Amino acid sequence: MSTPLHAGLEEHFSALEKFLRDQESAFEPEVRPMVREALAHPGKRLRPLLAFGSGAGGPPSAALVRGAAIVELVHLATLVHDDVLDGADRRHGADTPNRTHGAHAAVLFGDALFAHALVLAAEHATPELCLIVARASREVCSGEVCQTFSRGDDALPVEAYRRHIRLKTAELFEAACRVGALLAGRPKEHVEACSAFGRHLGVAYQIYDDLADLLQDESKAGKTLGTDVASGKLTLPMILERELNGPDGILRLRRGEDPRKAVSAAAWKESFRALDAEIAAAELALVPAEGSPSPFFLLRLTGFLREAAAKLAPRA
Amino acid sequence: MSTPLHAGLEEHFSALEKFLRDQESAFEPEVRPMVREALAHPGKRLRPLLAFGSGAGGPPSAALVRGAAIVELVHLATLVHDDVLDGADRRHGADTPNRTHGAHAAVLFGDALFAHALVLAAEHATPELCLIVARASREVCSGEVCQTFSRGDDALPVEAYRRHIRLKTAELFEAACRVGALLAGRPKEHVEACSAFGRHLGVAYQIYDDLADLLQDESKAGKTLGTDVASGKLTLPMILERELNGPDGILRLRRGEDPRKAVSAAAWKESFRALDAEIAAAELALVPAEGSPSPFFLLRLTGFLREAAAKLAPRA
Repeated sequence: MSTPLHAGLEEHFSALEKFLRDQESAFEPEVRPMVREALAHPGKRLRPLLAFGSGAGGPPSAALVRGAAIVELVHLATLVHDDVLDGADRRHGADTPNRTHGAHAAVLFGDALFAHALVLAAEHATPELCLIVARASREVCSGEVCQTFSRGDDALPVEAYRRHIRLKTAELFEAACRVGALLAGRPKEHVEACSAFGRHLGVAYQIYDDLADLLQDESKAGKTLGTDVASGKLTLPMILERELNGPDGILRLRRGEDPRKAVSAAAWKESFRALDAEIAAAELALVPAEGSPSPFFLLRLTGFLREAAAKLAPRA
Repeated sequence: MSTPLHAGLEEHFSALEKFLRDQESAFEPEVRPMVREALAHPGKRLRPLLAFGSGAGGPPSAALVRGAAIVELVHLATLVHDDVLDGADRRHGADTPNRTHGAHAAVLFGDALFAHALVLAAEHATPELCLIVARASREVCSGEVCQTFSRGDDALPVEAYRRHIRLKTAELFEAACRVGALLAGRPKEHVEACSAFGRHLGVAYQIYDDLADLLQDESKAGKTLGTDVASGKLTLPMILERELNGPDGILRLRRGEDPRKAVSAAAWKESFRALDAEIAAAELALVPAEGSPSPFFLLRLTGFLREAAAKLAPRA
């Protein structure tokens, strides 16, 4: 937990990991090993970082740590279900719950994990926390349903793509920021600024992830790439290529052609421009929070994303 | 919605169905047909009945109707996931979501449905409703995980069986009663009496359901029976038979022998005695609520269960 992204928040993240480990005892004895395994191989803890960044300033309160844990548990529950649905065996260098315990137990475990996140949210004095978390979770899952239904639709409009990624990724990013700022008692203006930051960052992050699925070296990514093309999912470069030059590029991708060639330079340029615009929108959204410690933590995320995008872009 | 079990609560159930139909618009356009289909073929609406019965007296308040809808939506979400996991094509005379839309969309839809139930719970003035519903949901799913893990364990103790069915069935029955009594503003003593009724009824209902899986005529049941034996799940008659006469009965069941013969008369008698004791415990739990309208509605359920059990019992 000592990547540069967490610098200055060491106390927060150490309290988070302890809090997460302590949740094990809330489950039935048979379920506890699953909880332990799900927490033992942390990902980037991006959503807690958003919560901590949005509520930054001084040592972490118990409420803020709980809030960060809640959004992470929701995220982990969606990963458990995603891995069942994709039949994925490995994540973060460890076996997935469906691999270890079978799809049956894994689906139910994901449900239990999500329900537990809401139990924790209900410990807050008002139902506001429950509402934010439950609503974001509904939107995440709805977005995934929409995207599932849109598979194989080569005419998917760019607006639909944007709506899908806002739902499936940006809603929980936004909720993480909102929860952090609210639980740290920040003023309304700050809460809204951080929430808008999270929303734009979520869209940018998903556009980046979709670009990486087409452009990254599999050896560097540490995961299977090209899955969007294989599953019939249209992402931004494919849609922009279709709008600029017709459906030929999509068909060539399907036939296995190198994405750098199947998608024209103009469509790549447009895609990276859209990513850049979303990152800029995230950064601008933070203006009302400029006097707070939050930009120090949150702008690192856009910085990293800028760098990652620059490394990914096809050279002219 | 005019079965005798709903008599006297027609206004409640008509308000419930309207409320449930109105939830469609809270979902993304692509998800709405799934919501509509999930609500179009109602089951017995047992959990709303428990909520309405526990909060009975006068016309239904908006809060009570919403509370009844919340527990039903949680139940529906678990059914959606159960049907995916069992690969079931039909329920309540209609195609299941996994049959119509595929397992992928169905798992995500179940998640969205559950999250929406929590959104509705968060509309209550205090987080109490969220806490009850989220905790019960966690226990339901945990109980199903435990039961999944116990498949094939022929040494399963009767206490473990009882814990599993309390979690997977009785927790939500209890929550339905608690939610109904609380939202109707009933005194603490009444709330606890109804909650205890729900807990005992849930255990009794699951014991009955497990007995029916072994004893009922498939033609009358309208669903596939004998699934517990086939899936390696031990239920009460099998466990009691093992305790009385050793593991032979379980092995004979597995070989396809008629349950009426493979399980001894003594084990059947013990099983029905356990069911009867649980029904009686439910009825007794209602004593503190005797002066309220609740027993009029709730005791019908134990009456129906008594009748169904009597029809099921193997004749000596």
